[in-house]
Amino acid sequence: MADTTVKRERGSEETNELHCEVKKTKVDDNNGGDGVGAKSQNALSGFKTSNVLSVNAREKRIVLHGKVADEDAVVILEKTPFTEDTMDQVFKGSTLKLDMKNYIYSTYQLQASPHYNEIKTTLVCPATEKHISKYKHQESFFVEETKKDYETITLPFIEDQTTFSLEWVYNILQKKAEVERIVYEDPDPDTGFILLPDFKWNQKQVDDLYLIAIVHRMNIRSLRDLTAEHLPLLVNILQKGQMTILERYSLPSSKLRVYLHYQPSYYHLHVHFTKLGYDAPGCGVERAHLLSDVIQNLQSDPQYYKNRTMYFPLREEDKLLSKFKEAGRL
Amino acid sequence: MADTTVKRERGSEETNELHCEVKKTKVDDNNGGDGVGAKSQNALSGFKTSNVLSVNAREKRIVLHGKVADEDAVVILEKTPFTEDTMDQVFKGSTLKLDMKNYIYSTYQLQASPHYNEIKTTLVCPATEKHISKYKHQESFFVEETKKDYETITLPFIEDQTTFSLEWVYNILQKKAEVERIVYEDPDPDTGFILLPDFKWNQKQVDDLYLIAIVHRMNIRSLRDLTAEHLPLLVNILQKGQMTILERYSLPSSKLRVYLHYQPSYYHLHVHFTKLGYDAPGCGVERAHLLSDVIQNLQSDPQYYKNRTMYFPLREEDKLLSKFKEAGRL
Repeated sequence: MADTTVKRERGSEETNELHCEVKKTKVDDNNGGDGVGAKSQNALSGFKTSNVLSVNAREKRIVLHGKVADEDAVVILEKTPFTEDTMDQVFKGSTLKLDMKNYIYSTYQLQASPHYNEIKTTLVCPATEKHISKYKHQESFFVEETKKDYETITLPFIEDQTTFSLEWVYNILQKKAEVERIVYEDPDPDTGFILLPDFKWNQKQVDDLYLIAIVHRMNIRSLRDLTAEHLPLLVNILQKGQMTILERYSLPSSKLRVYLHYQPSYYHLHVHFTKLGYDAPGCGVERAHLLSDVIQNLQSDPQYYKNRTMYFPLREEDKLLSKFKEAGRL
Repeated sequence: MADTTVKRERGSEETNELHCEVKKTKVDDNNGGDGVGAKSQNALSGFKTSNVLSVNAREKRIVLHGKVADEDAVVILEKTPFTEDTMDQVFKGSTLKLDMKNYIYSTYQLQASPHYNEIKTTLVCPATEKHISKYKHQESFFVEETKKDYETITLPFIEDQTTFSLEWVYNILQKKAEVERIVYEDPDPDTGFILLPDFKWNQKQVDDLYLIAIVHRMNIRSLRDLTAEHLPLLVNILQKGQMTILERYSLPSSKLRVYLHYQPSYYHLHVHFTKLGYDAPGCGVERAHLLSDVIQNLQSDPQYYKNRTMYFPLREEDKLLSKFKEAGRL
């Protein structure tokens, strides 16, 4: 029973994380003593697609589930990036079809030599149920949550679950875990917080800097709970977070995107700091709320987030989505 | 002189925003009475690259600067997303080369028929300095724009420039170009708009659906101009846009992200419709504003966007950034 109500968790910030290519291992497929080259080639040409697990139009990737002989297989296809030094060859020997022309702009379909336009292909075979479900795209649905919806659907849902899912947050706040990862702490019980790197950041380059500020106060579930009363806390996080990141990573506030999620992944107030220009998962307008905007909105209207209709995406397997469906709100 | 101040233009929605394909316009490049088809085709085959402006490995895009005859030109190449229903054909007639094999995982290079593996190609010719700099990779900076900053920095900047850059918008509104691309039109001069596919969308799959609604009213530059007076227009765009997309693409409103940009790429009010789950460029919290939020904010406070401090990123070569710097605001 507990299992079926497990809530969203750390690191589940984003839906579509499917990078999977393994590359650059040098294998000469002509000399394989075990005949791997020839065998695998046959394997894939005999691949029968049973369904499409996911498509990423932006990254030009598709993941298929099917069979190779009698075995379950997953095939990941991804178009390759352009390489600067082969551009001349791409143009040579290609054909071009005009699509449209308006003013100084014209667009074409270019068909290039296959040699200069390869597709990275990964085969997982035999694939387990786990592989298949990992690569499966879950649809998201935009949900409209009025004040009343929050009180009757979302809040009961959160209260049902908080007991067992925030263990790791308390471990951090109580210094039972990740102590050495703490980048900054303001210990004030009302306005204080702990700043530490998000799991998604390997801390090796600031290009994809990602830090999280977790507040010490225990009673703030999310944006919905915030009123003008919390302004000193929010301003403190913004200012000290920015200051710390400038000192520690030499990144000024003009390079930072500072925001909250709604719905958050876990219902203990936290703030995201990511580098501007890094296309961090979960920084889209459908889920992120700039801390500066939040502060400004609460300054003009202390009850802004209490009364407001909120919009956010939920994935099809999210329990909260079921609750909205049961209530006839979707 | 004027050239150096040319403002942001079509397709510059996002920092790394270089998709530019317009498709599906039926142009028979063999019968162009004006020889457009043939000429443009030759134009591109005679393209000489002088330098690479940017490469986006994640999105499989490259932007080149060079010459066509004696004119400066920018060429944007972007690989196309996979289309589910052509996957069988992609496998057929393709060749496969094994890269590596480890346990149940193996990777290959697949060379597919050019017909199923096209490259979207956009030519801008003659290209201005501004085009070239637009496509060049640049750092972004977060800017804070108070009401006063808008009046003293941004508005004069916009007014300086509008005369010569909206040509292509007027072409669409006056049916001088892209007529056959129009997906829906409400001709009402106050609340009407034209809905058409964005340059970035090739219309072959709804996974990356991207449409733009351009309003008929000529006097609304951006979000900053909106007051409660514009609510009928905004509600009309949201409702009819959603309805049209449901009818035409079978995508319900729970699958759509509908938003405005601030700063926009061009100062004639327009609204973006993208598919939820498609990580569209420019849909980040730092630049996008959900239309539903905009409507709600104007309902509570008719002057919300007039009085508010706005936050947005500007690229290092953006003239507006220089204006903020000159004013000591950065």
